[in-house]
Amino acid sequence: MKQERMSAFIKEGRSMLLAYDQGLEHGPSTDFNDKNIDPSFVMELAVKGGFDGVTFQKGVAERFYTGGVPLLVKVNGKSALVKGDPVSRQVCSVEYAVSLGAKAVGYTIYLGSAFEHEMLAEFGKIQEEAHERGIAAIAWVYPRGAAVKDDTSRETVAYAARAALELGADAAKIKYTGDRDSFAWAVKSGGGMKVFMSGGPKAATDQAFLLQVKGAMDAGATGLAVGRNAWQNAEPLAMANSLRKVIFENMSVESALAR
Amino acid sequence: MKQERMSAFIKEGRSMLLAYDQGLEHGPSTDFNDKNIDPSFVMELAVKGGFDGVTFQKGVAERFYTGGVPLLVKVNGKSALVKGDPVSRQVCSVEYAVSLGAKAVGYTIYLGSAFEHEMLAEFGKIQEEAHERGIAAIAWVYPRGAAVKDDTSRETVAYAARAALELGADAAKIKYTGDRDSFAWAVKSGGGMKVFMSGGPKAATDQAFLLQVKGAMDAGATGLAVGRNAWQNAEPLAMANSLRKVIFENMSVESALAR
Amino acid sequence: MKQERMSAFIKEGRSMLLAYDQGLEHGPSTDFNDKNIDPSFVMELAVKGGFDGVTFQKGVAERFYTGGVPLLVKVNGKSALVKGDPVSRQVCSVEYAVSLGAKAVGYTIYLGSAFEHEMLAEFGKIQEEAHERGIAAIAWVYPRGAAVKDDTSRETVAYAARAALELGADAAKIKYTGDRDSFAWAVKSGGGMKVFMSGGPKAATDQAFLLQVKGAMDAGATGLAVGRNAWQNAEPLAMANSLRKVIFENMSVESALAR
Amino acid sequence: MKQERMSAFIKEGRSMLLAYDQGLEHGPSTDFNDKNIDPSFVMELAVKGGFDGVTFQKGVAERFYTGGVPLLVKVNGKSALVKGDPVSRQVCSVEYAVSLGAKAVGYTIYLGSAFEHEMLAEFGKIQEEAHERGIAAIAWVYPRGAAVKDDTSRETVAYAARAALELGADAAKIKYTGDRDSFAWAVKSGGGMKVFMSGGPKAATDQAFLLQVKGAMDAGATGLAVGRNAWQNAEPLAMANSLRKVIFENMSVESALAR
Amino acid sequence: MKQERMSAFIKEGRSMLLAYDQGLEHGPSTDFNDKNIDPSFVMELAVKGGFDGVTFQKGVAERFYTGGVPLLVKVNGKSALVKGDPVSRQVCSVEYAVSLGAKAVGYTIYLGSAFEHEMLAEFGKIQEEAHERGIAAIAWVYPRGAAVKDDTSRETVAYAARAALELGADAAKIKYTGDRDSFAWAVKSGGGMKVFMSGGPKAATDQAFLLQVKGAMDAGATGLAVGRNAWQNAEPLAMANSLRKVIFENMSVESALAR
Repeated sequence: MKQERMSAFIKEGRSMLLAYDQGLEHGPSTDFNDKNIDPSFVMELAVKGGFDGVTFQKGVAERFYTGGVPLLVKVNGKSALVKGDPVSRQVCSVEYAVSLGAKAVGYTIYLGSAFEHEMLAEFGKIQEEAHERGIAAIAWVYPRGAAVKDDTSRETVAYAARAALELGADAAKIKYTGDRDSFAWAVKSGGGMKVFMSGGPKAATDQAFLLQVKGAMDAGATGLAVGRNAWQNAEPLAMANSLRKVIFENMSVESALAR
Repeated sequence: MKQERMSAFIKEGRSMLLAYDQGLEHGPSTDFNDKNIDPSFVMELAVKGGFDGVTFQKGVAERFYTGGVPLLVKVNGKSALVKGDPVSRQVCSVEYAVSLGAKAVGYTIYLGSAFEHEMLAEFGKIQEEAHERGIAAIAWVYPRGAAVKDDTSRETVAYAARAALELGADAAKIKYTGDRDSFAWAVKSGGGMKVFMSGGPKAATDQAFLLQVKGAMDAGATGLAVGRNAWQNAEPLAMANSLRKVIFENMSVESALAR
Repeated sequence: MKQERMSAFIKEGRSMLLAYDQGLEHGPSTDFNDKNIDPSFVMELAVKGGFDGVTFQKGVAERFYTGGVPLLVKVNGKSALVKGDPVSRQVCSVEYAVSLGAKAVGYTIYLGSAFEHEMLAEFGKIQEEAHERGIAAIAWVYPRGAAVKDDTSRETVAYAARAALELGADAAKIKYTGDRDSFAWAVKSGGGMKVFMSGGPKAATDQAFLLQVKGAMDAGATGLAVGRNAWQNAEPLAMANSLRKVIFENMSVESALAR
Repeated sequence: MKQERMSAFIKEGRSMLLAYDQGLEHGPSTDFNDKNIDPSFVMELAVKGGFDGVTFQKGVAERFYTGGVPLLVKVNGKSALVKGDPVSRQVCSVEYAVSLGAKAVGYTIYLGSAFEHEMLAEFGKIQEEAHERGIAAIAWVYPRGAAVKDDTSRETVAYAARAALELGADAAKIKYTGDRDSFAWAVKSGGGMKVFMSGGPKAATDQAFLLQVKGAMDAGATGLAVGRNAWQNAEPLAMANSLRKVIFENMSVESALAR
Repeated sequence: MKQERMSAFIKEGRSMLLAYDQGLEHGPSTDFNDKNIDPSFVMELAVKGGFDGVTFQKGVAERFYTGGVPLLVKVNGKSALVKGDPVSRQVCSVEYAVSLGAKAVGYTIYLGSAFEHEMLAEFGKIQEEAHERGIAAIAWVYPRGAAVKDDTSRETVAYAARAALELGADAAKIKYTGDRDSFAWAVKSGGGMKVFMSGGPKAATDQAFLLQVKGAMDAGATGLAVGRNAWQNAEPLAMANSLRKVIFENMSVESALAR
């Protein structure tokens, strides 16, 4: 068994990460309001909400990361403006991420894109450099592109998890399939690698989102990497609290919502 | 808070930069007349006009930069002849820029271009090398390409500012949205990073241009990076004077124009 | 005659390798069931089944390789999602493979693909680095792409073997042509280089598969690299046993099946 | 003012260079006859004709350059066979050019080509390496490609000169516009950088060519880089003599032709 | 005159090389029979036939080169399966070729291909590295691609020879034009560089082939690089003998055939 590079982000085998790279990936006007557009707001939430890690692009990390929570630096990125099969290239070196205090680097692979090979090759190098420097390499694996029909199907999500495992990722961030059983197949495909459910767009209700998270945890996920469902929530700290109960205490959604 | 690499260009939090890379970007016949085609004319204007920085491509810097104003070297560029989604590649190393006396490097990212990923990746490296050498990396972020509908909309300009922040730029140069409120959103998207309004093509009247600048400053911009509206002006020193009043003294456009 | 880098994988000139990189190449839902999705199951099979080598991608090797059988690390890979002419790029450095204990690296070349030149060039470098580090470089040569009509024809398979020889591979893994005589031409094209028959998808019956293997061995193959026909088999150890009899003892298929 | 790297090629501010890279650019059958196909013939002409420099590709320089005239090595090139937007890539390192005795390297940029960015980026590196090694970098700037309507218009030629200046070239070689006034605009766009008129295809008469050269010199050009109009001339030494009179002595074309 | 790097391959100014890279370039089933598919057969022919050099890809050289004849390693290659404009990329480093005992490296440039620029740039680097290591760089120049109408015309073959000269090749291998006079133009275009006629596909009769070789030698060629017309011949040693008479003794074809 290899050295556990994810340990900084894990408590008793579980983890709740806060993600905040949407400014580049989606644009501020799509996801942000007057409050959460401020990275300080999110940094504070990461600490006060008891998250086990926070994800920033290097520019936000450099200006707003204040410690108190382990840092995960996203090292590739793209805008949402470009159409067609997606390609996201490295914009931050592992060395630079480490200099900012990162305990892990994150990299998005659009599996199934016509440019998949460029991202696989780039992640291959980043993973090795991360390990050389003693930090974790986490793969966001999002099947996308003309060849991908349904990016949350049982088969597709399991493929994402497996690709991360085969490529040597220390953890994978993948989409939720919609139900526990199919997500369990993805977790199993990960072969023991840490699997994080990707929070995705804001769910209709808190309950709806917590049910997803509950399903993922019951399926064997290590935890959740949540962004919009936390910092777009009117009461993000309460939401963080509920999430913690579901993730770490195996609490039912109903109990977790009872504040 | 990270080290302030922009300090050379900033006076009491504000700044007025002179830009002169249009010879490559637009061609001399589009923008220049018999006077301003001469880089000495612009270099002199930078000093006499009290600008806080001057932007040249390396060739112009090497021949015409005489000091007296901090130097910003533009390190990528393209001609206006090529059609289709734009791509602008590095033509000057950070090391070379530093050897010319640069206190900052500038790089244009055409966000939304089909070649966006090449520029994001290249800027990622340049930003890190600039910081290693102790100078600032400024991102000109201009959304452009078939996928970009309106490059001065509130959403698009805010996206430009945010991309610069996320990518670790020390400052962004972005287009004006047309009004203070929408530009304030872009400034806010920048998360405290210095935001410069890009001067753009010569406005119909001095007043019209000053009103834009006033709007940008009121919206929280750090300042202006102006080219054509300065050196195409029949009285560039007077224009510089008026701009200074708007930028540094919060003066109304009317008062600033009263010479 | 050059140094025999394949010796770790060879017994008396013959070899039986276990392949398990289908998780990335085909996706877990295509090839795996609840048992064989677990790399431990395959690692155990490699040892108990008396295989002469086991092939993993780096991520699986890092987590599941426990020794007892020489390791072969596959250093390029792609998903099955992307359509069009295939390209598979390096995702693991030779150095990293060696650090995992690899005695050989494997690389797939899609001969005839419009991207063939990228893979030929990349394999050229990997082969040299492998030799520098004293391990073998094995070429999986699979003619594929719009220009390839029949990838198991006598001509095409012989081309695959010859390409591997010319490019300096220590061994080639190629598809079976369907009969001994035509496969003998491929082996002959290999000029004495070790030639492994690629197991391919699960055959209809054990007998059918063993007949293929028998044909390949009679044609002069060094051995077999088998994946699905081993670990998808209901009785993989029995299958391994039968294969060993065919490969190493020249036994007839009928005798080999008599358990 | 930067160090004058062109001084080896300049006499009292003027210069007459002999160009001979047409063997690669156009093919021998297009431009050469039994005499001028021999590089020795051109090398001898360079010396006897009193030229201030001679331009060869590295292969010709290596075999035929005998000194007596400063050497300029062309470091990129392409054949005339390929159609579509042109791209010409580096085929000789600056280091190799220096080892051959070069006092300058030349590089062609097809401004306006869809591959312009590749050439701009490559020239950017070559220019810096040349300066590091203390030799000049000369840009042949030829606007060409589907987007370029008229490559000898006032606007286009001025753009070529300006691009060379901005990119840090020590000199530019550009086409003649057809008249003095428009060429003066190109020279002015060059901002004091040495501007050489490109000789182009053989003119109808000696007089016609000399009139072009006279126009360029009167417009402020530093001189001429001539190939076909010299070595395709029936009396190349006489032509060289006439050219020298026009270039260095401000002689009228009529007087210069009176031999 | 530059150092003669070709001397190992030359006897009294002439040379007869054996080429055997068709296994990769054409595939074994196209060119080979049961005898000549074996590289040992060709290696033996090289020695016994009195050839002045033998050309292998690195894999064949590594396994079959036994000395007795200088080695030329082909360092790029492609399969015949891919359609469209050809591109052939480096698959063997110069360093590796030298380690195999090569006295020269060979590289194919498909002049006129849409990918010509990639091969020109790559050859440019290989040529310099070869010279640094003291061995020769030989250019196989084969005009090919949609833009090339007739690859054996006087103009096209001369262009091939000239390109090799300009690019610094120590020798060129080019196709025969069909007659002495037109081939003499190609030789002349080579400016004294060694020019080898490429043997090409098996000629209808020995006489027909010898007449081509005689024509090339009379045109000033240094010699011949022959493959199929030697090792596909029923009596390869006799053919080698005849070829030697034509190449080294200026013998008529009739006399050379009289065995």
